[in-house]
Amino acid sequence: MTARVGVIMGSKSDWSTLSHTVEMLDKLGIPNEVQVVSAHRTPDLLFQYAEQAEGRGIEVIIAGAGGAAHLPGMCAAKTHLPVLGVPVQSSILSGVDSLLSIVQMPAGVPVATLAIGKAGAINAALLAASILGNKYPEYHAALKDFRDNQTQTVLDNPDPRDA
Amino acid sequence: MTARVGVIMGSKSDWSTLSHTVEMLDKLGIPNEVQVVSAHRTPDLLFQYAEQAEGRGIEVIIAGAGGAAHLPGMCAAKTHLPVLGVPVQSSILSGVDSLLSIVQMPAGVPVATLAIGKAGAINAALLAASILGNKYPEYHAALKDFRDNQTQTVLDNPDPRDA
Amino acid sequence: MTARVGVIMGSKSDWSTLSHTVEMLDKLGIPNEVQVVSAHRTPDLLFQYAEQAEGRGIEVIIAGAGGAAHLPGMCAAKTHLPVLGVPVQSSILSGVDSLLSIVQMPAGVPVATLAIGKAGAINAALLAASILGNKYPEYHAALKDFRDNQTQTVLDNPDPRDA
Amino acid sequence: MTARVGVIMGSKSDWSTLSHTVEMLDKLGIPNEVQVVSAHRTPDLLFQYAEQAEGRGIEVIIAGAGGAAHLPGMCAAKTHLPVLGVPVQSSILSGVDSLLSIVQMPAGVPVATLAIGKAGAINAALLAASILGNKYPEYHAALKDFRDNQTQTVLDNPDPRDA
Amino acid sequence: MTARVGVIMGSKSDWSTLSHTVEMLDKLGIPNEVQVVSAHRTPDLLFQYAEQAEGRGIEVIIAGAGGAAHLPGMCAAKTHLPVLGVPVQSSILSGVDSLLSIVQMPAGVPVATLAIGKAGAINAALLAASILGNKYPEYHAALKDFRDNQTQTVLDNPDPRDA
Amino acid sequence: MTARVGVIMGSKSDWSTLSHTVEMLDKLGIPNEVQVVSAHRTPDLLFQYAEQAEGRGIEVIIAGAGGAAHLPGMCAAKTHLPVLGVPVQSSILSGVDSLLSIVQMPAGVPVATLAIGKAGAINAALLAASILGNKYPEYHAALKDFRDNQTQTVLDNPDPRDA
Amino acid sequence: MTARVGVIMGSKSDWSTLSHTVEMLDKLGIPNEVQVVSAHRTPDLLFQYAEQAEGRGIEVIIAGAGGAAHLPGMCAAKTHLPVLGVPVQSSILSGVDSLLSIVQMPAGVPVATLAIGKAGAINAALLAASILGNKYPEYHAALKDFRDNQTQTVLDNPDPRDA
Amino acid sequence: MTARVGVIMGSKSDWSTLSHTVEMLDKLGIPNEVQVVSAHRTPDLLFQYAEQAEGRGIEVIIAGAGGAAHLPGMCAAKTHLPVLGVPVQSSILSGVDSLLSIVQMPAGVPVATLAIGKAGAINAALLAASILGNKYPEYHAALKDFRDNQTQTVLDNPDPRDA
Repeated sequence: MTARVGVIMGSKSDWSTLSHTVEMLDKLGIPNEVQVVSAHRTPDLLFQYAEQAEGRGIEVIIAGAGGAAHLPGMCAAKTHLPVLGVPVQSSILSGVDSLLSIVQMPAGVPVATLAIGKAGAINAALLAASILGNKYPEYHAALKDFRDNQTQTVLDNPDPRDA
Repeated sequence: MTARVGVIMGSKSDWSTLSHTVEMLDKLGIPNEVQVVSAHRTPDLLFQYAEQAEGRGIEVIIAGAGGAAHLPGMCAAKTHLPVLGVPVQSSILSGVDSLLSIVQMPAGVPVATLAIGKAGAINAALLAASILGNKYPEYHAALKDFRDNQTQTVLDNPDPRDA
Repeated sequence: MTARVGVIMGSKSDWSTLSHTVEMLDKLGIPNEVQVVSAHRTPDLLFQYAEQAEGRGIEVIIAGAGGAAHLPGMCAAKTHLPVLGVPVQSSILSGVDSLLSIVQMPAGVPVATLAIGKAGAINAALLAASILGNKYPEYHAALKDFRDNQTQTVLDNPDPRDA
Repeated sequence: MTARVGVIMGSKSDWSTLSHTVEMLDKLGIPNEVQVVSAHRTPDLLFQYAEQAEGRGIEVIIAGAGGAAHLPGMCAAKTHLPVLGVPVQSSILSGVDSLLSIVQMPAGVPVATLAIGKAGAINAALLAASILGNKYPEYHAALKDFRDNQTQTVLDNPDPRDA
Repeated sequence: MTARVGVIMGSKSDWSTLSHTVEMLDKLGIPNEVQVVSAHRTPDLLFQYAEQAEGRGIEVIIAGAGGAAHLPGMCAAKTHLPVLGVPVQSSILSGVDSLLSIVQMPAGVPVATLAIGKAGAINAALLAASILGNKYPEYHAALKDFRDNQTQTVLDNPDPRDA
Repeated sequence: MTARVGVIMGSKSDWSTLSHTVEMLDKLGIPNEVQVVSAHRTPDLLFQYAEQAEGRGIEVIIAGAGGAAHLPGMCAAKTHLPVLGVPVQSSILSGVDSLLSIVQMPAGVPVATLAIGKAGAINAALLAASILGNKYPEYHAALKDFRDNQTQTVLDNPDPRDA
Repeated sequence: MTARVGVIMGSKSDWSTLSHTVEMLDKLGIPNEVQVVSAHRTPDLLFQYAEQAEGRGIEVIIAGAGGAAHLPGMCAAKTHLPVLGVPVQSSILSGVDSLLSIVQMPAGVPVATLAIGKAGAINAALLAASILGNKYPEYHAALKDFRDNQTQTVLDNPDPRDA
Repeated sequence: MTARVGVIMGSKSDWSTLSHTVEMLDKLGIPNEVQVVSAHRTPDLLFQYAEQAEGRGIEVIIAGAGGAAHLPGMCAAKTHLPVLGVPVQSSILSGVDSLLSIVQMPAGVPVATLAIGKAGAINAALLAASILGNKYPEYHAALKDFRDNQTQTVLDNPDPRDA
């Protein structure tokens, strides 16, 4: 089935974070594709990917990167699709550099930025479901189910002392 | 015409930032509504707003707030619509507190976070256009026009020394 | 015996921090209750908890949370009881995000914020004792005893080289 | 009438912040006293003040200070009353130094820390009302009135474009 | 005369910073060109500029940008010339975001980063002179003269109280 | 022999840092004493210590503390001796809180602040030697020997690849 | 009279900060000299100054600098005198860069660091008095007088509302 | 063969970072030398090294240091060669102190600053190749080969799930 969400990341080492995005997209039944695209090592590939994504049927791009994380912003500069940015936790500055490089985009070209690390990776998938859910009722339903279950799990386990 | 984007903010003082959102939405022809909803002073109104937004035809919520900016995240906790968060530049910590309070959401409930201040306010409108553009060709076209013009303006004015 | 202090936290993973609060409340003889209440996953439960706490005899609420820690502030928005906030040390930003999200409340709705992590968790219990001690002499006495013992322990062990 | 809340600050220059505390205490009808007490320039006065406050009928101490803000913590070290700390916005580091010096107290001696600057100063008074309200119904009522009015003001003015 | 140094910047508003670069290059007699090239608004122009610079005789590129400052790093991704990055002082985060976005490049594609703002803009020109000076004795001499004069000016004015 | 340097610290856990101070003082032949004195748990002991130090023959006080590190500043408030402050690396904020709490003293009461952690602990002893060396030639000589040896060790081992 | 304290600074622009040091030294009757010495523009002068200071009768060096503030640390590397460092408030990063560059010295070469800006400049003079006071009773007496007056001024003006 | 690049570092412990610089220089075939030169422990050696480097045939200096990292800046103050600074990741502040001490040089004396830690160490070598490549075609070619291979490696391994 054609991928509706394209998940890209700056290097293989980002997979330990972005795998949570793919796992959640799969759980929600949203067809997706995943690829390493490096803004600095493969800039032409990045431009090609961003330019062609919409034509290939991609409706949302999720881009994860760390350090001077230029991938999400440069991707957004080359497409009109919503680009969701996941700051990967960098080994030295804990992802503060990743976060600022992704979120502080100038007026004119937005990146929808999520939390640093695993939480942001999971939430990128949920945000994609929310975006796609406006057009596709099945993703809206899948998101609602996930959220309802999540709420019920807390309600069913009120005592933090239980294992 | 029914609003498709709901713009809310924590206090009247946030209007000097969020007015840029509304101005851009208007320029793109996206029907919108605007309201002060305070997470801390009117929590029940916030819950009511978030719960009823989807039923009233709202498809994207843009929430701006400063300091301990709980508005976007709590709004997201009560709706399945995409919530876009604009960190308002706080007078004391320059919006670093606003940014972290909005972007560092836990796994399960995402907020699509934009840049601090005016740039983020403008970009929230552009991101909303990008999200809605997947379903409504006219917003996709309006976004494309805006982006093309923006590019052309830079190309037409290459010399920074020109007034 | 009816709980006078309600201890809530955003997720089970916060228990390793908030358990120190409960341990200290127990040591001081202050009846308490403990529950997981998530601002983002169970917002309705949070509002219900905060609205009903005073009626159920709770006199102080202690709320611990990490990251975009909205629990203490939203709890404070729905009650007139003193709300004490404990920033849980987040895995990525060391609790700086938790601290700013809790302490930077806007004028109108205060949260009494303690130190990040275990020290803050212990001190939340001591602050609760100090608040309740004004009305209940037994908690004032228990607090005084704890503080006197704490002082004496330092005085009795002046040499840091002793094991 | 005997003061129930003692408001102290490290220097006269802090009055532009702490005056908001006194204004709010007056509005809520809570008798208070105000004094300059410097941790570094008048350490003996600070110890005397903290030691004698409870005996003089003070039930809550509010201490504001900036920079290496030792006043709230050292005051807390010499009393069993609840000490509320207001970080004054410092001219150089915006109050980040004040905030960390006040909130990061070690286990054993808590300071209930509020937001940096004017918001924290106002909220210190509201928190004092909340603490005292447990024993004195008139302060509970005054706090409830203030909070209700505050909510109603937002509800009555939903449009941020109104002057 | 053919430009040896290309000075680019993300927007016209960066000219108040980068004008110091050009002024210093002129003072040192280094032929240069200046142009607005926006990474996000004119990404294709940026790639074209970076790809063609070396062929056109440019030997050093100086790129200034603010916020999520992707210009220097993306330029470096598309050329083998030395790229010198000047973080422009952003209005909100003082250039900390610009600095981290420029300096924290991943292994494989370096950007020679200078100080935030005017000092960095001046120093980019001096660093270019130092780089070119290895090949062109006249720039080495011009740099030596500048540095000698700079030293002499301090030696001639030892008393800070002189106007 | 009477101690000339008094080394105090806020808790036993600071000994792993301050032990480096004592070790260096011993190496330099400077008589010293060491004691746990807690600003918050034993405030009266702190005042007594600071007040009596000069009379007992102490000429320099070295105070180490972490978190809301009030010990050095409050000690300085109660003595005219030079007080040297060592910020202990806190487990949560890496000692940034300790550093700011110690160094940002208001005009009127200085603390001579050293680096965070072990380096600062060692340097506090060297600074004490430098201060005392003005009066006591033997400490001046011991410091000179230490510094000469330190220089020679680097000169004798220029190759970083040697084990 | 021979200067006992040498006050140096990196540039004339630092005089607005360091003038407070000289003013306080004068008030305390401590003979001093003042000079611009730039670590980066006049490195040889710096080494000469530091090497010769002790021989010329200087007993304490106070060095103020901003940004990458290398002056105090490099001065300390070339003398056995106590070097007191004053971080000048930089226009961009508020002196955080100055503070870290001065205080984070490696083990082996200490700089006694004061607060950022005017407070630190005043305190450097007071710390010098405290250091010299151990050898010269007149400076000890002058410092004691200053401190007593400072305390009395606070005691005489307890009401912050007085003009 | 005469070294064209001099690699210096503040202490032996920096070798685990700077070894990556040397490894990359060797891979690119650029003759280099390596030495421990401490700004604070061997200031005279530093000045001698910087003064004589150009005469000895060195064309680029790479200096790595941590904490109050004065080595690159003081080296730059004593030479007209390009100085490349590598901030070593400090154990306490993650290299933020190193970065600011290196990059925030005042106007007049630049240091080309790279990323903190290993990435910066590798990139210093690549930047040196880029600088030398303008004069020496063989280094230009070696750099081009490295960059081409680097790009191809990403293109050949698009799937992050492959081991």
